[in-house]
Amino acid sequence: MSVTSPSAKRTKTAKDVSYNLIYWPGVPGRGEHVRLVLEEAGASYTDTAAAENGVDEVLKHTADTNTGDASNPPPFAPPILKHGDLLISQVPNILQYLGVRHGLAPKPGDENDGVYHVNQLALTALDGLSNEVHDTHHPIAMGLTYEDQKEESKKRAKDYVESRLPKFLGYFERVLKGEASGEGPWLYGGLLTYADLVLFQCIDGVKFAFPKALAKLEESHKYNGVFKLYDAVKERPKIKEYLASERRQKYADGIYRHYPELDSE
Amino acid sequence: MSVTSPSAKRTKTAKDVSYNLIYWPGVPGRGEHVRLVLEEAGASYTDTAAAENGVDEVLKHTADTNTGDASNPPPFAPPILKHGDLLISQVPNILQYLGVRHGLAPKPGDENDGVYHVNQLALTALDGLSNEVHDTHHPIAMGLTYEDQKEESKKRAKDYVESRLPKFLGYFERVLKGEASGEGPWLYGGLLTYADLVLFQCIDGVKFAFPKALAKLEESHKYNGVFKLYDAVKERPKIKEYLASERRQKYADGIYRHYPELDSE
Repeated sequence: MSVTSPSAKRTKTAKDVSYNLIYWPGVPGRGEHVRLVLEEAGASYTDTAAAENGVDEVLKHTADTNTGDASNPPPFAPPILKHGDLLISQVPNILQYLGVRHGLAPKPGDENDGVYHVNQLALTALDGLSNEVHDTHHPIAMGLTYEDQKEESKKRAKDYVESRLPKFLGYFERVLKGEASGEGPWLYGGLLTYADLVLFQCIDGVKFAFPKALAKLEESHKYNGVFKLYDAVKERPKIKEYLASERRQKYADGIYRHYPELDSE
Repeated sequence: MSVTSPSAKRTKTAKDVSYNLIYWPGVPGRGEHVRLVLEEAGASYTDTAAAENGVDEVLKHTADTNTGDASNPPPFAPPILKHGDLLISQVPNILQYLGVRHGLAPKPGDENDGVYHVNQLALTALDGLSNEVHDTHHPIAMGLTYEDQKEESKKRAKDYVESRLPKFLGYFERVLKGEASGEGPWLYGGLLTYADLVLFQCIDGVKFAFPKALAKLEESHKYNGVFKLYDAVKERPKIKEYLASERRQKYADGIYRHYPELDSE
């Protein structure tokens, strides 16, 4: 293994296999971003969320005795993507790998370094519209229940809904107004990328968690581009079929939770 | 601009210029990860932290009227890297761009897809040893002061120091024990990558913020690999020179803050 070795052509056989998504059953969660890319790409994949021993499979990988293997470091947490001999984790990382392979991101080395722009947009959506949403119901400790940190959650959620959420929606609205977004409803270069799928899923989750707050923001017409993108992703034929299928998990006690007391009044 | 355009050879002139790091003056902060990579690479760069109008320069880029330009979406927040016509933001994104260019990460397309392993490791360190540390003194709202959320901070910091910090150190210790880390003190492939520089800076920041807690963890000898890596980075000739220079910002009211009441007793 060498960090500076020259590009090597892949042996087709090692990668010419289905993807295996390793994620908790029962919630869309962070795994959902990976699913949406796989579905839009029409890729063949298996999903531990649909397996009987799904939880065991996740725990095997995150066990504190797992040191990985000869070519893969262990993952810290799911989602995990297995593809042939490759095993990788971290949502934005998995998305970049899949996006580049399936034409949902520019190739590394492209003239405009677009792969870094798409990565930037995905990282920002995940920070502000997924990770920060998780903290609205777990501001103190991941190991405690929501009920144990309910008062703190109310404060954090109020700040999120009033300050952070409009800030992030405003950011993506500016991206969509900017010249680099190109023509059409997408964030970058006039073509659908995985950053659009990430933003769709984030908005969908926030709609579930804070329906009143999001309705108000939508009615303000300040973020029309963002909601147009949301609708445009929802109407993609493969996404539409997927969302109506049983493969789409229902929201539950994951990142996006609906506690009426945390929503706008 | 095209998402699927074939690789284009870069015009040397456009990229044969210094880097420009755009970040807040006065704290190492998230910009520090970028600085360490530039310093280790021996790259030529300018830094708004050293400029008289540094704050204005940051605010110009993050203004809510900025929609970017023809090829660059606007940044959400600093650090921002400008390189010729390219402008990118998000720490793990900038690090990947620089790491690939300067031999501090495997090239995209390399046989083992190592670029994704290094990205995974950097993302995990930034999540657990930087972003979560920020939340120990701002668990409720970024717009409020520490004093306004001190009681909640005490609870969050207690959980961080007792539960999350050992979990993340334990993870990196496992990575270092794993076969994929190769020989020597580094996280991946037996060679220094930007993930090692990230982990170094995270440990350095945590040492400043929670000196008692970290001393206890170091004395437990459970994380010897992590502390050996920390020392090994510190002794890299260019890093050593940099850390002793005036270019290294002092810790202050940034991500890593030392409030004795948040540290272990």
